[in-house]
Amino acid sequence: MRIRFTKMHGLGNDFMVIDAISQQPQLDGAAIRKLADRQFGIGFDQLLLVECPTKPDVDFRYRIYNADGSEVENCGNGARCFAKFVRDRRLTGKSSIAVQTANGIMTLNVQADGRISADMGAPILAPQEVPIQQTEQACVYTLELDNQTIEFGAASMGNPHAVLVVDNVETAPVESLGPKLETHPMFPNRVNVGFMQVLARNEISLRVFERGVGETLACGTGACAAAVVGQLQGLLDSQVTVHLPGGDLTIQWPGPGQSLIMTGPAVTVYQGQIRL
Amino acid sequence: MRIRFTKMHGLGNDFMVIDAISQQPQLDGAAIRKLADRQFGIGFDQLLLVECPTKPDVDFRYRIYNADGSEVENCGNGARCFAKFVRDRRLTGKSSIAVQTANGIMTLNVQADGRISADMGAPILAPQEVPIQQTEQACVYTLELDNQTIEFGAASMGNPHAVLVVDNVETAPVESLGPKLETHPMFPNRVNVGFMQVLARNEISLRVFERGVGETLACGTGACAAAVVGQLQGLLDSQVTVHLPGGDLTIQWPGPGQSLIMTGPAVTVYQGQIRL
Repeated sequence: MRIRFTKMHGLGNDFMVIDAISQQPQLDGAAIRKLADRQFGIGFDQLLLVECPTKPDVDFRYRIYNADGSEVENCGNGARCFAKFVRDRRLTGKSSIAVQTANGIMTLNVQADGRISADMGAPILAPQEVPIQQTEQACVYTLELDNQTIEFGAASMGNPHAVLVVDNVETAPVESLGPKLETHPMFPNRVNVGFMQVLARNEISLRVFERGVGETLACGTGACAAAVVGQLQGLLDSQVTVHLPGGDLTIQWPGPGQSLIMTGPAVTVYQGQIRL
Repeated sequence: MRIRFTKMHGLGNDFMVIDAISQQPQLDGAAIRKLADRQFGIGFDQLLLVECPTKPDVDFRYRIYNADGSEVENCGNGARCFAKFVRDRRLTGKSSIAVQTANGIMTLNVQADGRISADMGAPILAPQEVPIQQTEQACVYTLELDNQTIEFGAASMGNPHAVLVVDNVETAPVESLGPKLETHPMFPNRVNVGFMQVLARNEISLRVFERGVGETLACGTGACAAAVVGQLQGLLDSQVTVHLPGGDLTIQWPGPGQSLIMTGPAVTVYQGQIRL
């Protein structure tokens, strides 16, 4: 059967998006791995299937699969691509779209400039829950590594983040320090490591070493954690533009206990048709 | 403007193919690099533009560009994709297609099974012309490396190849020995290094360390050189199936002074439309 699809990306995190309402693609793990191959297939980080909701008061349901065929709970970059897709393909005319994901209902808001906002929930700051090996919550923690004292802030966005303030993000030791901090005993569940350069009270540059992955183009939860840590340390205001290698995100956070709103772009690269 | 394209591959060497007869895409180096990006664009090893010929008695002209925007002289995998493309898009009904490339006229033959044959020219065997640092032409040469004597055969298909016969291609030291041989003083223009396991007189497995690139999925000229060296060493017959990591090629060679005929597949992955 011939399937229509759209290739999209959010800050370089790329997706094959399929309207699985008007089409019924049959895709098992082997088929997804074949499609994900960048030489022999279409090539993508994730596959996103847009489906009819199975619950009331929701506009759509989506499911996201990694290139290895495993299902992913949710993904900020994918959520933005989903919102642009359903608007561009005229599957909805709404600018506030409720979608059922593998870990709950999410509401996406399409802004006048075309960017999409998502509620990322409230950050978790209690050290036992991040988790980090500390008894008292603080804005700055320290650890010893290779006879050096390293200062960092910490927050969980559902996944644990350590954030280091650096003078120059370009020359920051992401590749050397990232893996050492990821597996440091301070972090029982390992940790994502952000290297943040503060450019102004409303602007940072950020590189993130993702747990189990390495440096990535754009880590949405890493951007949230950096904004939280920077604000708690008195370096940042409540709205921050985050420059990531893959592009920019805007993070708004009223303060502890409140949800973060992440706003960013979604880009359509091309339309395709493939015979499955 | 909106451009129709086809994504194809030959043994995993992948191409964006554009009908530039009915469409006039304006693509400079920056535009090609953007399209070639596998996250932000379509993603390909090469871009292939099918155009009207500028010479008589030729069916088409094509031009091939690398992902960095530079123009390539020719490419066996791309030639096969071109032939499948012009047949599938009904730009021609011929099964023998003459095409004008950056380094001359090439004739491609579409076989009954859909595979495509191309005349690869005659191999160059004179050591000064391969080139290798030897005075006498031989079927087996030797060189010293790390206190070890290595036996190899050599041929040029327009580019220089050294071919080693190994017992097991899976465990062959491609990554360690490849770079050392590539830059060995025996080879003044450096060399592509093939590791060939002879499975039968008409069947080999081959891995190729390409000069300046590293190991690749499918090196067409490497397959030709391996068939030539194997035949000269009395190990192979005149028709050989070559198993490469990306798939199979068939090489026919009547013997010294004669042209090689390479036959292999071309695969269409999907049709696309992109706004440039």
